Amino acid sequence: MRVPTQPPTLARELQRIVGPDAVFWQPEDLLLFEYDGTIDRGRPSVVAYPRTAEQVAAIVRLANAHGLPVVPRGAGTGLSGGALATEGGILMPLTRMNRILELDLENRIAVVEPGLVNLELSKAVARYDLFYAPDPSSQKACTLGGNVAENAGGPHCLALGVTTNHVLGLELVLADGEIVRVGGWGRDRPGYDLTGLVVGSEGTLAIVTKICVRLLRRPEAVRTFLAIYDTVEAATGAVAAVIAAGIVPGALEMLDRNTIRAVEPVLHCGYPLDAEAVLLVEVDGLQEFVDESVARVGAILREAGAREVRSATDPAERERLWSGRKQAFGAFGSLAPNYYILDGVVPPSTLPEVLREVNAICARYGFPVANVFHAGDGNLHPCVLFDERVPGATARVLECGGEIMRVCVAAGGSISGEHGIGVEKRDYMPWIFSEADMDAMQRLKVAFGAGERFNPCKVFPTHTGCGEVQRGPAVARLGPDVYV
Amino acid sequence: MRVPTQPPTLARELQRIVGPDAVFWQPEDLLLFEYDGTIDRGRPSVVAYPRTAEQVAAIVRLANAHGLPVVPRGAGTGLSGGALATEGGILMPLTRMNRILELDLENRIAVVEPGLVNLELSKAVARYDLFYAPDPSSQKACTLGGNVAENAGGPHCLALGVTTNHVLGLELVLADGEIVRVGGWGRDRPGYDLTGLVVGSEGTLAIVTKICVRLLRRPEAVRTFLAIYDTVEAATGAVAAVIAAGIVPGALEMLDRNTIRAVEPVLHCGYPLDAEAVLLVEVDGLQEFVDESVARVGAILREAGAREVRSATDPAERERLWSGRKQAFGAFGSLAPNYYILDGVVPPSTLPEVLREVNAICARYGFPVANVFHAGDGNLHPCVLFDERVPGATARVLECGGEIMRVCVAAGGSISGEHGIGVEKRDYMPWIFSEADMDAMQRLKVAFGAGERFNPCKVFPTHTGCGEVQRGPAVARLGPDVYV
Repeated sequence: MRVPTQPPTLARELQRIVGPDAVFWQPEDLLLFEYDGTIDRGRPSVVAYPRTAEQVAAIVRLANAHGLPVVPRGAGTGLSGGALATEGGILMPLTRMNRILELDLENRIAVVEPGLVNLELSKAVARYDLFYAPDPSSQKACTLGGNVAENAGGPHCLALGVTTNHVLGLELVLADGEIVRVGGWGRDRPGYDLTGLVVGSEGTLAIVTKICVRLLRRPEAVRTFLAIYDTVEAATGAVAAVIAAGIVPGALEMLDRNTIRAVEPVLHCGYPLDAEAVLLVEVDGLQEFVDESVARVGAILREAGAREVRSATDPAERERLWSGRKQAFGAFGSLAPNYYILDGVVPPSTLPEVLREVNAICARYGFPVANVFHAGDGNLHPCVLFDERVPGATARVLECGGEIMRVCVAAGGSISGEHGIGVEKRDYMPWIFSEADMDAMQRLKVAFGAGERFNPCKVFPTHTGCGEVQRGPAVARLGPDVYV
Repeated sequence: MRVPTQPPTLARELQRIVGPDAVFWQPEDLLLFEYDGTIDRGRPSVVAYPRTAEQVAAIVRLANAHGLPVVPRGAGTGLSGGALATEGGILMPLTRMNRILELDLENRIAVVEPGLVNLELSKAVARYDLFYAPDPSSQKACTLGGNVAENAGGPHCLALGVTTNHVLGLELVLADGEIVRVGGWGRDRPGYDLTGLVVGSEGTLAIVTKICVRLLRRPEAVRTFLAIYDTVEAATGAVAAVIAAGIVPGALEMLDRNTIRAVEPVLHCGYPLDAEAVLLVEVDGLQEFVDESVARVGAILREAGAREVRSATDPAERERLWSGRKQAFGAFGSLAPNYYILDGVVPPSTLPEVLREVNAICARYGFPVANVFHAGDGNLHPCVLFDERVPGATARVLECGGEIMRVCVAAGGSISGEHGIGVEKRDYMPWIFSEADMDAMQRLKVAFGAGERFNPCKVFPTHTGCGEVQRGPAVARLGPDVYV
């Protein structure tokens, strides 16, 4: 392996744009950027951290001159490989663009840079009793730019909607280096809804350099219920009963037996180890409404067969109930060295049958599976536990995941609820879309002039020019030196 | 004027696609299609009613062969000229495609054809305690396809969101006659969000032939408040106070003095004639919540200076309170022979100042103005009253409307809340978007291969090849005979 001591040409050119401390090109530095939250890997040729939209535009123009891809990146917490430079090129983390630029408290609007960490926005406006709604599990680390790219969700998106429902407008750098502004204040977005189109486009159409978001008023009161069930069917029945009663809880999450057994010994959240499933149900709003809901929601959960229903309003006690949900994925480390977390969505009425099939598929492959997910809107997250050191395990866990996705599609659902398609599920797209459907979508890359310039070979099935993705333990793959 | 007795070639070709009873080409028939809900006019060359997506595709291919525009149309209730064939060509009403194709009651999804009338969907599912949320004033007549084209809103969109928040997927006919399907079940829409992009694209990108929508559970209880104010400032202050209290009412509407004076003598809704403004505030949800809200919402409305606050839960009484809102535009007929209804949106904190300016502008032009609008989300609908028989009045009312739109933009708002841009406001787009911004949007027409084939010369400022719009009383404009 050649280890250059002087920056190669491309790195020097990038240093002229963003400064010498914002470019990384040494192999040991590049190693740090091979990962995101998936089991896929991809190594950039060079990494450059811009601080302004103008620097982003200059990097894009430089990439054009060199014929290189540009891969935007947030915190790298994504779960579908969206932030991986699988085709090499310039990886552009936007994490140094992390300022809150404007706060209009009266009208509850914030304009922020894409590198701002999700939770930091809510923290910054908490003193005004406001918050930013989408709350992915990674919200302490993930950036709003990454959330925009993946149209991120979270437990509280059941009542409040996912990222696209909270973004009013964007500033974008297009593939020709032009800076444009789309969207705007109001119920409708005049002209074509490019804001909505770019949200969820996984960094393939444009680079987001400013985000105008809606802030919400924090609910006056919150009550968290824990309902304990002896069968998965009873728990999913309770989910249906809550919604059928016309209640839209702030959150409606389910954790199955394997999840309970992983989290309870470590986190002591109070989940009984012999339960088959627990539901976390959160009701929020005005004090009177929350007070009234105690009897009603409790009764519905009990009538659906709960062995026990507890509820908490005290923040510390609520946090304890939530801890098993929020930290579940970390706790899975006690069960297996690796996990593969899936993201499928099914019509809620099919949940019992789909969960049975998910468990049967994993049993057939010999992988334990823990299910912890957004039950209220049918957004499943089977977490398949495996050990990548076992030869062939990574390939088999991916195959197992594919079968689970097929079950979701067959149930009338879809292959992504909130994690995006990325590299992980691009080859599954033909399961839900015809060639003509996908062609219609891919014309937009042409429209944006993006081609494969931005985050190439993502979202759509692989085609000529897209290399095979590296999967599993970081292999000794070198960045394509030809670029640097 | 030549009055052909035999169908011309194009009409005969269309008859072969849709049948002889579904094509209109005689001048006296075409006259009926010159109008929509605006004061603009546009006359098609020929009108054809398809019954299937395949017929739509065949019409599009025929239009391609002849180099003719295709203008999709719903019920023609639109308020920005979106359904007018201003450039001639084939006008294609989709009102004979009006079936409900699928109802999944358990998962609350309906698949419908675009010609289905908005209210008919809610009526069809009412027996299951479900409804379709967006409720434009025209909901007894307007079609869901038209709602999709314009991203329609309505009073209850404050809490529930506009059309784009309720459409899960679409079947589309593209400009090359191909039929594709976009979107899908779930929180996220995998791939690019073409569903969100086509919603609000005003018929310019593709023809919608199927719509998959989300249905909602009807609230268990509803209470409607009428709050009466002696000043507009007090009423707008009450709007801010309700929202600041963390309450998101189902609807939060304001009617000003001129509106009250127009509707009360005709409709007897119980609005005092000496009030400067009334608010209609609707709280819905679980019975307990609605019961509890009576004291709380009542207190907020009173503290903000209401002279009187009434409330009703009885359906007949609620309907009476709402009648002045729902039928306001009809009642304006008693004040003037014509009205021009505007659609602007401003940050709610600017409402008092913006309303003052709106009234001042209209006073300067000598036009009475009535304001009846979605106060909760700052969506203004100044209704400028005039008489088109007065020479120059139509030109002046349009100029007056332009000034009002400028005030909305200057206040940090936008030129459309829910009516779309159409022909009415296409020349105002540069007030909120740069050339580069609009270029980025217009590239999508290229991406869709639509060019100016579908609903030409709408949404974006006029350019070469787009004729001047006819405005005011139906002028004796003939359809471009060259087409037929």
